[in-house]
Amino acid sequence: MSDSQKDELMQKPISRREMLKLGAAGGVGLLLGAGGITGVLAGSGMINTAKSTTAQTNEEVVPFYGKHQQGIITPAQDFICLGAFDLTTSSREDVRKLFQKWTQAAAELSTGAGVGEESNNPNLPPVDTGEAMGLAATGITITFGVGPSLFDDRFGLAGKRPAALTDLPPFGGDELLPQWSGGDIAVQVCANDPQVAFHALRNLTRIARGKAVLRWVQDGFQRTRTADPSGSTPRNLLGFKDGTNNPNVQDADLANEVVWVQPDDGAGWLADGSFMIVRRIRMRIEVWDRTPLNEQEATFGRHRVSGAPLGETDEFATLDVEKKDEQGQPQIPVNSHVALAHMGGKVKIHRRGYSYSSGIDAKTGQLDAGLLFICFNRDPRKQFIPMQKALAGQDKLNEYIVHVGSAIFACLPGVQAGGYIGETLF
Amino acid sequence: MSDSQKDELMQKPISRREMLKLGAAGGVGLLLGAGGITGVLAGSGMINTAKSTTAQTNEEVVPFYGKHQQGIITPAQDFICLGAFDLTTSSREDVRKLFQKWTQAAAELSTGAGVGEESNNPNLPPVDTGEAMGLAATGITITFGVGPSLFDDRFGLAGKRPAALTDLPPFGGDELLPQWSGGDIAVQVCANDPQVAFHALRNLTRIARGKAVLRWVQDGFQRTRTADPSGSTPRNLLGFKDGTNNPNVQDADLANEVVWVQPDDGAGWLADGSFMIVRRIRMRIEVWDRTPLNEQEATFGRHRVSGAPLGETDEFATLDVEKKDEQGQPQIPVNSHVALAHMGGKVKIHRRGYSYSSGIDAKTGQLDAGLLFICFNRDPRKQFIPMQKALAGQDKLNEYIVHVGSAIFACLPGVQAGGYIGETLF
Repeated sequence: MSDSQKDELMQKPISRREMLKLGAAGGVGLLLGAGGITGVLAGSGMINTAKSTTAQTNEEVVPFYGKHQQGIITPAQDFICLGAFDLTTSSREDVRKLFQKWTQAAAELSTGAGVGEESNNPNLPPVDTGEAMGLAATGITITFGVGPSLFDDRFGLAGKRPAALTDLPPFGGDELLPQWSGGDIAVQVCANDPQVAFHALRNLTRIARGKAVLRWVQDGFQRTRTADPSGSTPRNLLGFKDGTNNPNVQDADLANEVVWVQPDDGAGWLADGSFMIVRRIRMRIEVWDRTPLNEQEATFGRHRVSGAPLGETDEFATLDVEKKDEQGQPQIPVNSHVALAHMGGKVKIHRRGYSYSSGIDAKTGQLDAGLLFICFNRDPRKQFIPMQKALAGQDKLNEYIVHVGSAIFACLPGVQAGGYIGETLF
Repeated sequence: MSDSQKDELMQKPISRREMLKLGAAGGVGLLLGAGGITGVLAGSGMINTAKSTTAQTNEEVVPFYGKHQQGIITPAQDFICLGAFDLTTSSREDVRKLFQKWTQAAAELSTGAGVGEESNNPNLPPVDTGEAMGLAATGITITFGVGPSLFDDRFGLAGKRPAALTDLPPFGGDELLPQWSGGDIAVQVCANDPQVAFHALRNLTRIARGKAVLRWVQDGFQRTRTADPSGSTPRNLLGFKDGTNNPNVQDADLANEVVWVQPDDGAGWLADGSFMIVRRIRMRIEVWDRTPLNEQEATFGRHRVSGAPLGETDEFATLDVEKKDEQGQPQIPVNSHVALAHMGGKVKIHRRGYSYSSGIDAKTGQLDAGLLFICFNRDPRKQFIPMQKALAGQDKLNEYIVHVGSAIFACLPGVQAGGYIGETLF
């Protein structure tokens, strides 16, 4: 297979049909039955052969290269493994090299392969850690972002800090812990398999050795397609559907309005990137579970079973916060979560969160579980921050949740094959 | 549907065909297309209707009632949520009532339903917490065990403590933490969906309110069927296949020999039960990842890629610890993990463990990930304990792992419909 064919392979969504064409053009042995895409890639020498010795399924492969990074408007996979890193180097060149290596590894991992090429020299550690050998790509995406602290005085990047990459202000009710907050760099790995996601973050961490260390890691999940092949709106751990009213970011115009930094937004190096906000929101599950159904529904502003706005029966019924009931009262309480988050229909964010379950809180014996809130937005000063201010002040939900972690990152633009994530910055 | 039909439903594996027959016999509306099994159960009034409003898939339902508890020889599902409880009551009658309620709830949860029947009274909290609404059963199993501490002086049960329910002796290298060890009761939930598993443990915890509280909870995973539909041997987080040489406990004779407590083993109330050992084994992943391939393979005694015993090519090749290489040296090092665990072929345990990933260790910044080791055996004094003694003393793997949690539980016998888990004890 020629380099240009390899490049093409990495840039576009790949169908089995296209693989066949590529294989035929390049004279690669066609063993798609057992080996699927990975078999062909292995035949091409692109992938360590260890990976290809086991029969694979051709699960969805999300293209790594492109105008935007993957994992932002990609429909949410079932699992996340999110790591925040602190840089231990003070050399900008080191950081640049790290992103180059990470880009190469992420492109490989995105195809379902391991990282690098195994030397098969028994006196060396394996290049890839191996726990994803034999597993399909399962739609894995890897997304890189940089935090405000990258623009301090260590790397000479202060002048490039986007105004919108602001430190998040304190919000009422925040109980933030440093061990769940901040970070110079974020690496978001999502996949339909937790071991595939873990494997990717672990190998990227290993590649960063000597340059960056993990600051925090949080795993998360949504319901699997095994449990819900129809892919209906997932429920959060309070039992309510979560994400019904998410803007349809598959609409390119809407994505440009809500998600993607535009060339004239300032900080041109970030054009086609996006701002990611992460909040680790612990749910007071034991308190919620003692709350009457009508209180729960008034808290969210939606019905529990159907997910419909209060007074409606269809989950996707228009959210009309002005509507009055027979007594002339708002059908949806003004301090409900959906009424406040609605922001008059003028402010939108693209949410892409996961539930988390991290055992119990040793101090209280209560479940340490909740929502790993993640959203992407074009300008947090106009989107996430005003929305969160409105919620933090009045949201009925605040009685049942507490924000214990917080971070903001500028997710870099996508790159074409041959380039590297961060090339417009470093 | 008559009670006897309901009972039949809970006791046996259920096929769609059988559901149709049952439905027809009982005059239940047949809406299997959209509702699947849960639809029919809802029509029968057995399941809260909230649960049945969403289209379901009829994923595998493992029968709850039977001679043995589910989740012991059931082929391992993809996810686990394991909780250990401490009793806060000192009344044996309270404990008995708790197990009665738990049995009823577990039988419901095993069908993919929520717990109890919703009153739909908006002034009351929902009976089921709701986050598994619309999700299929995904092969969920719930397994109950009791620890040595249940037989102290609180409940008048000291005379019933099985001799084999011994406190585990200290093993060399143990670094056990109380927050990951012990417990009066264990509840093991396994399912092919993490939200389904979490939901079950949470609702069982809620039912225990006032009688028992969580002592520790650990989630775990194996690769999903999405990533590996062929169901090959899963790999642990050190990249090696784990479980190749597990005894085939689907063979009833072997299961009686290895897993199930026999009537003449002493403590007759535990006949048809089993002993569960849980060890939270943290892996020193960062050290392992710097270790040469030949060292890694000598540590396990198996090849990394194929999983075959050293010197062989087939994963399932007979493990011959006597075999010598051309230099007359053992082909499999005598201090390798498999050579030591082999125990001359005379001692077997049934392993049913999961990987875990719990973020990072705040003290060291290293990954807090590893193996939630779980095994079932008929008599730990003759099986797990001697094997672990052999491993703790010499196992090359000890350089890369540390046992931080430990517990032993007697898993109660199964029950028939109308009975309750623990009825032979309380």
